[in-house]
Amino acid sequence: VPVFTLGQLAAQLGGELRGNADHHIDGLAPLQTATASQLGFLANPRYHEQLQQTQAGAVLIRPADLAGYDGQAIIVKDPYACFATLSHAFDLTPKPKAGIHSSAVIDATASVDPTASIGPFVVIDADAVIGAGSVLAAGVHVGEAVVIGADCWLGTHVVIHHRCRLGARVRIHAGAVIGADGFGFAPHAGQWHRIAQVGAVVIGNDVRIGANTTVDRGALGDTILHDGVIIDNQVQIGHNVVIGAHTAIAACSGVSGSTQIGEHCILAGGVGLVGHIQIADRVHITGMTMVTKSIEQAGSYSSGTVMSETAQWKKMAVRLKQLADVPVARLPNQLGHMQARLERLESLILDDQPVNPSTVS
Amino acid sequence: VPVFTLGQLAAQLGGELRGNADHHIDGLAPLQTATASQLGFLANPRYHEQLQQTQAGAVLIRPADLAGYDGQAIIVKDPYACFATLSHAFDLTPKPKAGIHSSAVIDATASVDPTASIGPFVVIDADAVIGAGSVLAAGVHVGEAVVIGADCWLGTHVVIHHRCRLGARVRIHAGAVIGADGFGFAPHAGQWHRIAQVGAVVIGNDVRIGANTTVDRGALGDTILHDGVIIDNQVQIGHNVVIGAHTAIAACSGVSGSTQIGEHCILAGGVGLVGHIQIADRVHITGMTMVTKSIEQAGSYSSGTVMSETAQWKKMAVRLKQLADVPVARLPNQLGHMQARLERLESLILDDQPVNPSTVS
Amino acid sequence: VPVFTLGQLAAQLGGELRGNADHHIDGLAPLQTATASQLGFLANPRYHEQLQQTQAGAVLIRPADLAGYDGQAIIVKDPYACFATLSHAFDLTPKPKAGIHSSAVIDATASVDPTASIGPFVVIDADAVIGAGSVLAAGVHVGEAVVIGADCWLGTHVVIHHRCRLGARVRIHAGAVIGADGFGFAPHAGQWHRIAQVGAVVIGNDVRIGANTTVDRGALGDTILHDGVIIDNQVQIGHNVVIGAHTAIAACSGVSGSTQIGEHCILAGGVGLVGHIQIADRVHITGMTMVTKSIEQAGSYSSGTVMSETAQWKKMAVRLKQLADVPVARLPNQLGHMQARLERLESLILDDQPVNPSTVS
Repeated sequence: VPVFTLGQLAAQLGGELRGNADHHIDGLAPLQTATASQLGFLANPRYHEQLQQTQAGAVLIRPADLAGYDGQAIIVKDPYACFATLSHAFDLTPKPKAGIHSSAVIDATASVDPTASIGPFVVIDADAVIGAGSVLAAGVHVGEAVVIGADCWLGTHVVIHHRCRLGARVRIHAGAVIGADGFGFAPHAGQWHRIAQVGAVVIGNDVRIGANTTVDRGALGDTILHDGVIIDNQVQIGHNVVIGAHTAIAACSGVSGSTQIGEHCILAGGVGLVGHIQIADRVHITGMTMVTKSIEQAGSYSSGTVMSETAQWKKMAVRLKQLADVPVARLPNQLGHMQARLERLESLILDDQPVNPSTVS
Repeated sequence: VPVFTLGQLAAQLGGELRGNADHHIDGLAPLQTATASQLGFLANPRYHEQLQQTQAGAVLIRPADLAGYDGQAIIVKDPYACFATLSHAFDLTPKPKAGIHSSAVIDATASVDPTASIGPFVVIDADAVIGAGSVLAAGVHVGEAVVIGADCWLGTHVVIHHRCRLGARVRIHAGAVIGADGFGFAPHAGQWHRIAQVGAVVIGNDVRIGANTTVDRGALGDTILHDGVIIDNQVQIGHNVVIGAHTAIAACSGVSGSTQIGEHCILAGGVGLVGHIQIADRVHITGMTMVTKSIEQAGSYSSGTVMSETAQWKKMAVRLKQLADVPVARLPNQLGHMQARLERLESLILDDQPVNPSTVS
Repeated sequence: VPVFTLGQLAAQLGGELRGNADHHIDGLAPLQTATASQLGFLANPRYHEQLQQTQAGAVLIRPADLAGYDGQAIIVKDPYACFATLSHAFDLTPKPKAGIHSSAVIDATASVDPTASIGPFVVIDADAVIGAGSVLAAGVHVGEAVVIGADCWLGTHVVIHHRCRLGARVRIHAGAVIGADGFGFAPHAGQWHRIAQVGAVVIGNDVRIGANTTVDRGALGDTILHDGVIIDNQVQIGHNVVIGAHTAIAACSGVSGSTQIGEHCILAGGVGLVGHIQIADRVHITGMTMVTKSIEQAGSYSSGTVMSETAQWKKMAVRLKQLADVPVARLPNQLGHMQARLERLESLILDDQPVNPSTVS
């Protein structure tokens, strides 16, 4: 386990240290569970009260949140980003050595940078290019004429089909498949005729793709993931989709063919988008939302119904089906009109009658 | 890049050529982006106006859509099906050579046709049969007593578990798993007891299965995909499911155990079907629909709610929960009855009174 | 095909035999399709009438369900659990032999029990431990310092990333990825900064994980699956999730980071849970439910809308959007109040008038 002093960590972050520069830190932890040898962090002022109870050896904290806390601290502008930075110091993920494992099958026309690391049972097809410092874990298959940029990491069994192109520092997790055929078929006489998918997948720099995610190649033209896109596990990206820079897509989401998503969007888990629509920049789509048309304005969008106990839900579901035949939007107006007419009659008839309060709405 | 003349392409399609038979074409493209060396296509008359601006070297077009277009054309009955046909002429997908890679591990009792192509790190277990012209990409695992028909294509890392049987011309994309155990457990004393899944998966001719899709083996009896079924990526097919011929299932859908789907159905993306139901022929299910009971009639079916801005959606969601306790279907009737009673009173009282128009609904 | 006598099967189950102990049985089947050489079972009294028509050679049955059935039977307390037990007698899944395939790449510091079975193209990294009787199918990758307990089964291409730990009798199906990085990023200046995921995945005894399922490693601390958890195919378990003992999760479900699920829960297919919530013990969540907050009580929970024909659904969907602006819960009260006021007027005016029955609600 790596161990650092508070002084070392503060120096790495360019933060101001309050406390003993020689205090040993061997890990990061949330305030609630951190021990004396761990560094906690206060990313959200909402949790400020946790500072009182924390056993953390020191805390990553903003200057504005220091009030009422006397313990050791590394004072920084953005504790969460600093936490992200320091997390790598404590990471035990093995770092593979440069070189090609003797079992790998590499076509004579492929070009592998000598600083790249090629694991056991990797297959690299004709004319492929593997950039400097890139790591291909066991069983990766890189297809014909694929280009992998510098410092990429492809996890175990990742498949990059022919002619796809990756920028630098792309990370793709185990089991992901990039560039399989898009789902393109022409119906003809009751059968499905396959359309060759002659485009590829083009991936920018600093893109992240999760385990068992699939990104299909384009039918005509390419499927494109721009710089800084991050995608979670089990996501499906259809053919000719374009995803703007720095957009994040959480697990189990699916984007249908030819849809274009803007920059800096966030799709939560289980979201589904139909094909051939456009999503503006800075759109946030909440979990399991069904998106059936374009979104032209930045903002947050949702669909679905809120969970209930099943018995209650069944009653709701029946009413909801009935709703199709009930002009519900007109009901308040109708009620209003009737009330006005009723009041008119009352004013004519009840002038001298005492009003029974219990009947007044 | 392959290059053809318009004359060659028209001849391949049996279409009528209008224009220069020697014009070179090096690709297909939509009307809007096609260049002078590309062939465009007008599959839907809705886009007829795009003919005016297109830079395409020629256009695949129906006779009925020619009016108002003077450019070069290949005139055919079904432009989209012809586009599908021609797409393969421009496809750069590598065609592997027949033969067995030296690294493959093939049981002595397995039978591999000499015209088949077996890639690196393929494993073929005892008594398996690989048909003529079939291609097994790198890392494919074919289990004991599996039968693969002629001219199949199994992408990288595809797994076909023991005793499953594939017809001819089956295409299965990278990472798909055919014949893993169905999710069958008997609850007993608070624990789950595994039920051996002794059936298999039986796949007809011309079936297509997408990347990272899973099709489970039957518990008793087989899971069956009939001829011409096409399935997209990331789909789950449970044990003992039966899918009728020429049915299409889009990405991220899930079909629970023992459900039977008819022929010529279309399931859009993210659809879920409970187990033990029947879906008729020619049923269309729209995206993300939850299917909880059998569908007996051809037609289109949907569930879910339409996306709104999140703030608006939250209001809707609250109202929807309230709906469980509101007999909404009765409200219009109740209003109607009250209105009749109100009118009766008005006719008795207001005979001589002027009516205020603003109070009339 | 294995063949047993009724006497052998009754003895294995400790059940009471009624009929010919020498009758040959070569398989199990549902009552409706069972033949004279197959053993049927009546697990649910609802299907008692199927006993009249069954052609089964004998039936697994409860004493209480014997009335009206004269055929051969093995009489047991829990026919479905007994069916689960016997299913393994008829299972043809190949049993791999102990030993290490010559193609496997195993680090010198790894420890593999001599009774384990290591398939072709398996990779085992430094300091990993493989327990007695465990089976690693072709292409499995076991990362650095991973611990695999006794009698585990890892299907083809399963990946267990560094430092994850599995108990005994864990079964993981083909293509599953255990311990990939959680989806942890800190936003900073419009970009996503990766947070190293320094936790691992800890899996108890008798856990089952389906094909192409993904279970991410923890960010800080571990992702934990307790004893007896069973998970279907294509499921996503986020970082730092904790799943209680004997909980079952069906296909295509997703559990977001840091969510805790109790014991003996059942999540049906396609369920989605947001992050950082708690689910009590013995909670049942129906298919495709969106769970956005903690569930504190055992019981059954649902969300979503019921399927309709698409035309009807569109009308419903429009009304539902309108609902946001209709105070629907207040309508019945408003109607009640107006009715009371109307009746008051009627009693004053209509005393001597005949009531028209058709206007009475």
